[in-house]
Amino acid sequence: MLQKKPLILVTNDDGITAPGIRTLIEVMNEIGEVLVVAPDSPQSGMGHAITVNDTLFCDKVIVEKNAPQMEYSCSGTPVDCVKLAVNEIMKRKPDLCVSGINHGSNSSINVIYSGTMSAAVEAGTMGIPSIGFSLLDYSLDANFEPVKPFVKKLALECLENGLPKGVVLNVNFPKLAEKEIKGVKVCRQAKAHWIENFEERRNPLGRRYYWLTGEFINEDKGEDTDEWALKNGFVSVVPVQFDLTAHHAIQDINSWNL
Amino acid sequence: MLQKKPLILVTNDDGITAPGIRTLIEVMNEIGEVLVVAPDSPQSGMGHAITVNDTLFCDKVIVEKNAPQMEYSCSGTPVDCVKLAVNEIMKRKPDLCVSGINHGSNSSINVIYSGTMSAAVEAGTMGIPSIGFSLLDYSLDANFEPVKPFVKKLALECLENGLPKGVVLNVNFPKLAEKEIKGVKVCRQAKAHWIENFEERRNPLGRRYYWLTGEFINEDKGEDTDEWALKNGFVSVVPVQFDLTAHHAIQDINSWNL
Repeated sequence: MLQKKPLILVTNDDGITAPGIRTLIEVMNEIGEVLVVAPDSPQSGMGHAITVNDTLFCDKVIVEKNAPQMEYSCSGTPVDCVKLAVNEIMKRKPDLCVSGINHGSNSSINVIYSGTMSAAVEAGTMGIPSIGFSLLDYSLDANFEPVKPFVKKLALECLENGLPKGVVLNVNFPKLAEKEIKGVKVCRQAKAHWIENFEERRNPLGRRYYWLTGEFINEDKGEDTDEWALKNGFVSVVPVQFDLTAHHAIQDINSWNL
Repeated sequence: MLQKKPLILVTNDDGITAPGIRTLIEVMNEIGEVLVVAPDSPQSGMGHAITVNDTLFCDKVIVEKNAPQMEYSCSGTPVDCVKLAVNEIMKRKPDLCVSGINHGSNSSINVIYSGTMSAAVEAGTMGIPSIGFSLLDYSLDANFEPVKPFVKKLALECLENGLPKGVVLNVNFPKLAEKEIKGVKVCRQAKAHWIENFEERRNPLGRRYYWLTGEFINEDKGEDTDEWALKNGFVSVVPVQFDLTAHHAIQDINSWNL
């Protein structure tokens, strides 16, 4: 059992005022001492971007009056927020980093585009137990109530058990009422990809521009995937690693004539 | 053996006029039909970011007079460039995607921050054999001559043999003369992380801001890593996967009380 109050870093990619992060802060305040460092504006789709060619602002802010947590609003990406929090703002390494709750899915291949998950991964590279949470509902008025007990349970289990070295968790919630959620499944990432359909338009000066729109293609029929779990009413938990080495392919490439 | 001229997509993260991509285009023109879609400005450290909250411009440009390749300059990230190229610009799926040659290392954990590698990974998710190339020299006047024969050889081998499903290559070159390079080693990604030292300054109005600076910490003593290979005069080739599932950790997390 934990002896003292754990120190918890909270961040996200939808921005510091998004309902998802406000819910996450509320739940974390039941568990430990909370410090928030989150983007000052939406950073969806920023992946593991860091700010190398520009300056970073990071200011103490009060989002909720009389709230127990300290909060910092940062001009950078979710990964910048974690780097600033751990290396510049926090007096000691946090016991847990949680990111989200993202408005929208980060299951399957979406993990690589996700600012929410990249923030969790960044904390993981620093040896901090870390979880990214996402709800399959993009709307700003998404209902986060049903997922609160699961967020709390997962955070407590993570604090209690720790995580294997080099591993962080990607947690996605189906858009369901609490009693409709069938449980939690530990899964693998489904094999899927996007096919983009760029929408072409002209600006007032006649110059062509595009909006990125795409179609998610799940090519994976497995019943042990996050996509399957979510479609069947389960919370999906995928252990994610940042050693990207395809160890199984080393022998294959070694057969090349190099 | 290849029957017809392969179609090769070239991109990078340093921008379309960077010496690294000009070298890559030159080598690829010896192998096949080349199409370039690359960022209109430096996009280092953009990781797997995509442009979801803004418009994208992508215009045909002539960078070199009378060059055989078609080139497009794009306002987005390296991953946007690949998505636009494959889904909007190219008449058919390319036979190969090459990204780089990056000015600076993308070995070890740097792979997750790298726009160069994320472009290669994005093409990989679309089933396109794909290689990211980087030279361990950040300077704009880096000497790319020594690496040309290796780039050509690797691209030809990749076209001939293909790559295992779900795998792309992360190739890094030491900063050495050609005759000093000892050969090519297929490696795993070294376990390493960054410790940031943010440089704090004040803007003319007195507001605090930061520049990200950091120290690379290689905690890996293995002699089968990319860091070891590069330090010992070899070209490193790491097969990289975008299935981020830590399969070995699934059983562990399943023991949690969820």
